Amino acid sequence: MIMPHHHDTHFRRVENLIAEWARAIDENRVEDIAALLVPEGRYTVRSRFNADRGLPHALIDTVSAAQLRDRIQSMRIANVYEPHHYRHLISGVQIVGEADGALRVRSNFLITRTQEASGDTCIFATGQCRDLIEMSANTAAFRSRELLLDSRAIETLLVIPL
Amino acid sequence: MIMPHHHDTHFRRVENLIAEWARAIDENRVEDIAALLVPEGRYTVRSRFNADRGLPHALIDTVSAAQLRDRIQSMRIANVYEPHHYRHLISGVQIVGEADGALRVRSNFLITRTQEASGDTCIFATGQCRDLIEMSANTAAFRSRELLLDSRAIETLLVIPL
Amino acid sequence: MIMPHHHDTHFRRVENLIAEWARAIDENRVEDIAALLVPEGRYTVRSRFNADRGLPHALIDTVSAAQLRDRIQSMRIANVYEPHHYRHLISGVQIVGEADGALRVRSNFLITRTQEASGDTCIFATGQCRDLIEMSANTAAFRSRELLLDSRAIETLLVIPL
Repeated sequence: MIMPHHHDTHFRRVENLIAEWARAIDENRVEDIAALLVPEGRYTVRSRFNADRGLPHALIDTVSAAQLRDRIQSMRIANVYEPHHYRHLISGVQIVGEADGALRVRSNFLITRTQEASGDTCIFATGQCRDLIEMSANTAAFRSRELLLDSRAIETLLVIPL
Repeated sequence: MIMPHHHDTHFRRVENLIAEWARAIDENRVEDIAALLVPEGRYTVRSRFNADRGLPHALIDTVSAAQLRDRIQSMRIANVYEPHHYRHLISGVQIVGEADGALRVRSNFLITRTQEASGDTCIFATGQCRDLIEMSANTAAFRSRELLLDSRAIETLLVIPL
Repeated sequence: MIMPHHHDTHFRRVENLIAEWARAIDENRVEDIAALLVPEGRYTVRSRFNADRGLPHALIDTVSAAQLRDRIQSMRIANVYEPHHYRHLISGVQIVGEADGALRVRSNFLITRTQEASGDTCIFATGQCRDLIEMSANTAAFRSRELLLDSRAIETLLVIPL
């Protein structure tokens, strides 16, 4: 295992950006994730099954931070669902290369969901994050963030972004 | 995402302290966690539900390392329970600020419990750690450690600290 | 908590090696893990129960990278099993000492398994990794890798290495 040296200096900021996304959702500040994308940033949730076969269908596919903001607002206003929240566990963050001046980053996730009424906690989703991250001076932002779900079956309507 | 630079130098020691707490419990060396608190350190386990509403009720609330030591000793001597052990998964450690010379740190946890007899493994608890950590020279210690549980329902008596 | 300073410089490469093992398996590139062992490297999967009692029985015990390669090839060719894949969550990587010029490293793991047909995801295994890792210039490799399972009961035949 050889690791390019300059990746090491970026690593902590990359890891922190990914943690910040997760924490914003878990702390019920979902609105804040849109600010972690660059303005034209893309956010996609897709099954591993579809991705492996080149199938385009995605559960979520927003092509700008503004569109993601809209989707979150509709979640707050329009959607009716049983109150629940997530808990993100992220692991194995690796910078695996570069593309057009952005870092290609991989990590694994496991998200639990707890129903507020019953207190039941279950594994809601597991999978891999495939991110393109732009670095500039002391900041980092997602150019694209693709979450690949291990399972094709997502138990309920996906209300809150992952 | 901007990250204060001096936090970066502390980060590894903060992360190691949190990992050490988890490993002491998982390796059945629960007594060792008391030494990771400062002498007047506070350790609290509370539901997110209560914390969000400012309700004081906690499952565990010890206000010194000595009191935590007492509680652990009573677990070893007095409590009768089916043998089991935990496995801690910690994720997303972030230094989010400072308060009175200590670092404010957030992380997520997922703890599984395995029954020794049956071998059954389940998700026992998920939630967020809210820590105040004191740094000095090469050492780090918890001034306070608050674990917020996602679920109000903890399936059995909480015997072993989390 | 005091942490030897020279461990800090190795830490990122150690963490990356452990992440690479997990990702190779999760991305269905299981063959690649053999290259992360030194040629005479040992890979063992054993229950915590047996390890605590000094019992030698192991689910997997390969004593060289070549033997691990053989085992993986037989998995690809000979074994018949329902298609499934893993997702590794790793946490709490700590360098806890040295032995014969290698780093002694501990980490926790939780592995989920998703059945391709049904999409069901469950906790497949949890436990602790006990690694000896050789560092040289910019590279890192496992001299030995022992996975201790929390549960004695592994639900099905262990087809894919953990």
